[in-house]
This record gives sequence, C-alpha cells and structure tokens, in this order.
Amino acid sequence: MTTYQEYSKEALLALRQELEVAYGEAKEKGLKLDMSRGKPSRQQLDLSMEMLDTLNSSTPAATADGTDCRNYGGLDGLPEARALLGEIMGVPADNVLVGGNASLTIMYDIIARSMTHGVMGGVPWCKQEKIKFLCPAPGYDRHFAITGFFDIEMITVPMTADGPDMAVVEAHVCNDEAVKGIWCVPKYSNPQGVSYSDETVRRFAALTPAAADFRIFWDNAYAVHHLYDHDQDNILEILSECEKAGHPDMVYEFCSTSKISFAGAGICGVAASKGNLDFMRRSIGMQTIGPDKLNQLRHVNYFKDMAGITAHMKKHAAIVRPKFQAVLKKLDEELKGLGIASWTEPKGGYFISFEAMDGCAREIVRLCKEAGVVLTGAGAAYPYGNDPKDSNIRIAPTFPTAEEMEQAAELFVLCVKLASVRALTA
Amino acid sequence: MTTYQEYSKEALLALRQELEVAYGEAKEKGLKLDMSRGKPSRQQLDLSMEMLDTLNSSTPAATADGTDCRNYGGLDGLPEARALLGEIMGVPADNVLVGGNASLTIMYDIIARSMTHGVMGGVPWCKQEKIKFLCPAPGYDRHFAITGFFDIEMITVPMTADGPDMAVVEAHVCNDEAVKGIWCVPKYSNPQGVSYSDETVRRFAALTPAAADFRIFWDNAYAVHHLYDHDQDNILEILSECEKAGHPDMVYEFCSTSKISFAGAGICGVAASKGNLDFMRRSIGMQTIGPDKLNQLRHVNYFKDMAGITAHMKKHAAIVRPKFQAVLKKLDEELKGLGIASWTEPKGGYFISFEAMDGCAREIVRLCKEAGVVLTGAGAAYPYGNDPKDSNIRIAPTFPTAEEMEQAAELFVLCVKLASVRALTA
Repeated sequence: MTTYQEYSKEALLALRQELEVAYGEAKEKGLKLDMSRGKPSRQQLDLSMEMLDTLNSSTPAATADGTDCRNYGGLDGLPEARALLGEIMGVPADNVLVGGNASLTIMYDIIARSMTHGVMGGVPWCKQEKIKFLCPAPGYDRHFAITGFFDIEMITVPMTADGPDMAVVEAHVCNDEAVKGIWCVPKYSNPQGVSYSDETVRRFAALTPAAADFRIFWDNAYAVHHLYDHDQDNILEILSECEKAGHPDMVYEFCSTSKISFAGAGICGVAASKGNLDFMRRSIGMQTIGPDKLNQLRHVNYFKDMAGITAHMKKHAAIVRPKFQAVLKKLDEELKGLGIASWTEPKGGYFISFEAMDGCAREIVRLCKEAGVVLTGAGAAYPYGNDPKDSNIRIAPTFPTAEEMEQAAELFVLCVKLASVRALTA
Repeated sequence: MTTYQEYSKEALLALRQELEVAYGEAKEKGLKLDMSRGKPSRQQLDLSMEMLDTLNSSTPAATADGTDCRNYGGLDGLPEARALLGEIMGVPADNVLVGGNASLTIMYDIIARSMTHGVMGGVPWCKQEKIKFLCPAPGYDRHFAITGFFDIEMITVPMTADGPDMAVVEAHVCNDEAVKGIWCVPKYSNPQGVSYSDETVRRFAALTPAAADFRIFWDNAYAVHHLYDHDQDNILEILSECEKAGHPDMVYEFCSTSKISFAGAGICGVAASKGNLDFMRRSIGMQTIGPDKLNQLRHVNYFKDMAGITAHMKKHAAIVRPKFQAVLKKLDEELKGLGIASWTEPKGGYFISFEAMDGCAREIVRLCKEAGVVLTGAGAAYPYGNDPKDSNIRIAPTFPTAEEMEQAAELFVLCVKLASVRALTA
C-alpha cells in the first residue's frame, strides 16, 4: 500500500478534492452523536436493573450483623462492601474504605485534604513552596483537571507499552521533594489500554521518594473490565508490593462500580495502609456521618462476591467488544498502511487511543464536530489540555449504538484522511 | 415547692444518701442505651420503605425529559429534585444544587474550597492571616467540628429566645474582616429548638460585613420537622431577605432529607445566589461527574412535592412527639421547682436542651454513662467542646423506643438530682 507521503503532489491534490466532496456530503447527513466521554451505553446499564429489586419495602434493610443500613453511621462502609471492593482490587477488606458514587471524589478529597492538612502529619501542601505531580500521558483528563484546579504543577511522563517511562518517574520522584504524587491508571489505561508490566509495578513499589509525603494515586478504574474471555491483562497488586518493598504507606488505590453497575449510582472505594486510612478517617468523619449504606447493600446483595462480578463483566464485554471491534475494523480497512495514523488495540477498558499525524488532532476533532460527531477535545489526555504534538485523539466506543458507532467511525476516518491530506498539501 | 438551695444541710445530706442508694440500684439494672446522637428510630425509617418500591427493574429509570438517571452527568442534580428541595427551603429550583446523602459534606466542602480557592474570587482563606467563625451556642457539634478541623478560630455567640444575640453578631461581622462565617440552625435549632424571629432574620440579611467573603451558613436542617399539627414555627426565607437587603451573595442555605426519608440514604441540597452556585459548580465539576441521580429519582417519585413532604412529616411527628412529651413530663414531674435545672420545650426539631446547675453537666453525663445510658458528651454543643458554665446537656429523644426513653429519662432525672446534691454538699 502506498502511504500518503509517497503520493505525488498531483495525486494528493486530486485525493484532497475527492475527500472535500465526501466530507461535504457527510456534513449533509446531519449526524448528531456525542462520543466525548467514556460512558456506558443504555444496554450496559440495563444489565444491572435487577440490583434495584434486591431492596424494597419487603426486604430487610440490614446486614447480617444487624446494622440498619438506613440510619446514620458506619464511616468505613459496610464490611460486606469493603470485602467486595477489596476482592476487585485484590486487597483485604480492612484496607478498604467504601464511599459514595464516585471514586473521583475520593481522589479530589485526598488532594484537597493534603493541601490543607498535609499527608499523615506532613506540612500542608498549601504551606509548601511548590507542589508537583507526575502525569503519565496520554492519561485521564479528569485526573489532570483536579491537579490543575489546585495549581499543582503537572509534569508529563511519556507512556510506554509497559506503563509510564519508569526512568523518568524515578528521576523526578527520587530527586525532587516537590513531587508529591503521580496519577496512574495501571490496567487498561485511559486512553491507551496499556496494562503496567510486573517490572513497572515493582519499580513503582521500590521508589524511594525525596518527599515523605509522596503518594502513588493508583486508579484501578478498569480492574475487571476485560473485553475478551481469555486474552486478559493482569497486573501485580500494588499495596502488597509496596509493603514488601518497605513502603506500605506510599500508595492509594481507587476503584468503583461506576462501569460495573450504574455510572451515576455505583459505589466506590479507596484501598491503602492502616496509617493512610486512619488519617483519612479523621477528615471523612468531619465531612459526613457515613456513606449511603443502602446503595452499598444493593451492590452486595446483587453481586455477592468476585464470582458475581466476573460473571456480570462478561455480559458487559459481550456488549462492548463488538463496538471496539467495529471501530478497529474500520480503522484497519481505511487507514492501515497510509502512513497517517496509528492506534492501540486494547484488551479492556473504555478507550482506543488514536495517533494522527503531528499537528492534525485538533483539526480532525474540529472536522468531526462540524459534521455532527463530538469527540473528546484534542489534547484532553495531556496536562493543561496541551498535547505537544497535537496528535492524540481518544475514541470512546461504548456509549453509541452499534449503528451509530458505524456512522461515527465512517466519518472519523474520512476526517482523518481529509485533515492529513490538507496538512500534506498545505 | 422547696428548692434544693433552700434545704437545710441535714436535709440535703439525707437526700444525698437516699439518691446514692437509688443510683446504686439503677446501676444494677444494667441498662444499655445510646442517646448520644439525633438519630431517627427504626419506626421512623420504616415510614419511607415504600420509596424503595418506586424504582425497580420494571420501572423507568429516567426523568420526564428522558434523562437516564443511571448514567453519568447532571452536576446540578435532577431538575425535579432541585424543585423538591427548593420547595422545602422556599426558594426557586434554579437556586438549588442537589448532592449526595449528607448536607454536612456540602458544608465541609464549601469551607475546604474557601481555604484553598477563596470565596467567589477572594483570597484563599489559607493565605489569609486569620479566619474566624461565629458560633451561636449551644449549637450543632458537627458544625463546630468542621471549623475546628480547619483551625478556624471559633467565637461563641450567646443564644436568645429569638436566635443568636444579633448585637454580638453585628459587632463581630461588621467590624472584623477575619470573621468569614456564622453557623446557624435557624429553625428548631440544635439543641434548643429555637426558631429565629423575623427581626433576627432581617438583621442577618441586613448585615454589612467587613469581609467581602463573609457568608451565613444557614443550615435549615429542621425546616419541616414540626412536632405539632397546628402550633408550628415558621421563619422568613433568608435568600430573598438577603436579596431584598442588597446582599444576594451573603448566604448559603442547606437542607437534606436525612430526617425525612433515610438518615444514611437521603438527598441533600444547597441553595444560594447564582454567583455562589456558579463558583461552586467549578469545583464540584472537578470532584464528581454527578450525584446519585437514582436516589434523587426515588425521592422525587415518592414525595412528589411539598404536599407529599408535609403529609409524610406528620407521620414522623406522630412517632416522635410522644417521646418528647414523655421526657418533658418526666422532667416536669421530677425536677420542676427544685432550682437545679431548666430546659427547652421545642415545637420541632430533634432535641431538648437541658441546663443543669453550673458545673454539673459533665458529672450528670458521667453518672448516666456509668449506669448504662450514653448521652451526647457534655460541652459538645459549644465550640472546642467547652461549655464555660458546664451546664448544658443535649437530650435526643428520637432514637430509643418509648419504653427505653422512659427508663433513660428516669435515670437521667436521678443523675441530675444526685449530681446537684453532691455539688451542694461538697
């Protein structure tokens, strides 16, 4: 196959004309699709509807030990819910606190608390000269939004096929006392779908930070979100690795059922050492009289244990997998060998990460939007929304229907070609 | 009736011996009651169980406008939920944001955000030399715990039968730029059951604070929590009063259904001016992708509107009223005219505020605890847990059963007498 770069000037101009016409026609279709976020589809949400039946006016609203889940109290979350999320993360229930409907809130709160109260007795970050976070990128825009909101300086760390570039991580963490944290999505990372290798996880656990209040923010958002039954990624469990390496307090791990049960009405948890949890308990105890235990009970009633979660996630995969495959097929058919793009083929998670020609991502997203398909903003996967090469685009295949996905992918490849040819003929 | 102070020394000593014996016997009974918190009883929680039936696998999980309440999004809360909490507070839905299960979390978050990001563009509190809050006392211990947690200096303001002593409030707010807030429970206050008079509310609205970032924290926790059908307190609506007085941004109002539906699984809201809400939206948007809309939908489905809330609260009152009356009857029968105590007779809310002889509150609480009845810690209703006269005790009649309440009240009056006589004979 001939790459666009190998085309003659005339051939490129002819191609451009052809693509401009096709794009004009595509705009006429009046598409109206929003693929900007990693949202589960209606069909996926339908999977958990029977959870709602586990709690009604004739079922008990108490746990086995008699705790009335309707009343105040139980700051740590229900023991059964702690065990369930512990299983998902591979850690003991005692190391887990279960909160409300968004793990993002726990992350935000930890950073807000670190600003005003420090980390386990350390100097509050707002009293320290400079606070920096490492941001493996492309990464999760909402992570970067939090650190950005607190005026924390964000340092981009390149991603590799094994996770963040650990040499870069080590150089910053071990030598710069201002570096207080790193954002990680260790399994089926957002947006690339990269799972950290065992060596990467061990190097994380072995970090000897310059700052005593440095923490790894381990957002295990896609712990059980495999696309395939057999070809699955698995990562080492970070809490025990940190403990083995003599750094038990160095990590917070997060998980939630937002993409297991209901995106807006799931439960979330944080796993950490007893020291970290005790420190958190103090402020959580100021902030609330306890989480929504009824919703925790619903989740426990419905999923019961890891076997329940695993069986349920297979149903998700059956819905999501064809959408990923449809996108990948289209990319393959239309863009492979043209020299203008590459993309990841994740085995789980919620995204495909697409690399356009340098300088083309913004234009592609703009073209798609003009023709009615909203993608995640170009650059969103980078700190400060600034993709230095302007090449990365996050594709979120889960929310649209299969038919919409087909239309959107069709438009997307057209826009990629058009933006590339425009750039090459500029 | 003869007061204890009028007793002869011998009569007091004889009485003391009698009470010591009675207390010894009371301890033998092995009571085990926790009356430390204002928790609804099981019977009250049972009132809302049919709310759970409004959402199951065969009901729609969407609002009238088609919003899928199971998915991400909707930072402001469901329009229907905003309207419902707006009705409770007497403000338009547009001025309300609806959050999760605890209004305390909204209050904590506002203060945490003010520390790091200031108030509507003001200098962050953590960058200001000194931050002070006014604390009408006796008041709600969890309010004071939040300001204490952030090292905010707390200034006690005396309560009157019309609300906080407004001369004291005005003197501080209008002259001291370090005073950034005041905690208020304006209706059926915790613990006294005081409702602010119209004049008090108008004087609040008319405040001309020295600090532009001064805010009134108006925790309308008992807005609809009347004990009687006819003899009800009503207060002026603070948002419109502030607006009329030319200070639309000066107040945040809070409410929740914790003591309407489920204490641990209700919904909560904040009402404020557009300026305040827009400022909040920025950080809430960092913190979460949206509240639990399914639980909001449950509340809307079940209560529908203010008429639904009012009818429901009558059922609560029917359960709670006899408990209040039983305590008041016992206090009346056993302590009236003895010169050793006074107490409030609230028409709503969750507490009775009890004033013992100076220096006796701690001892009464200790005696009760030793005999198996846990009360709220003495001093809890004051900033820093420090009741200067050591006289205030908060009685929370809602949680125990009627029978338990009877036993607890019996023990309580005994301990009050014993502590008083001990003090008078010391």
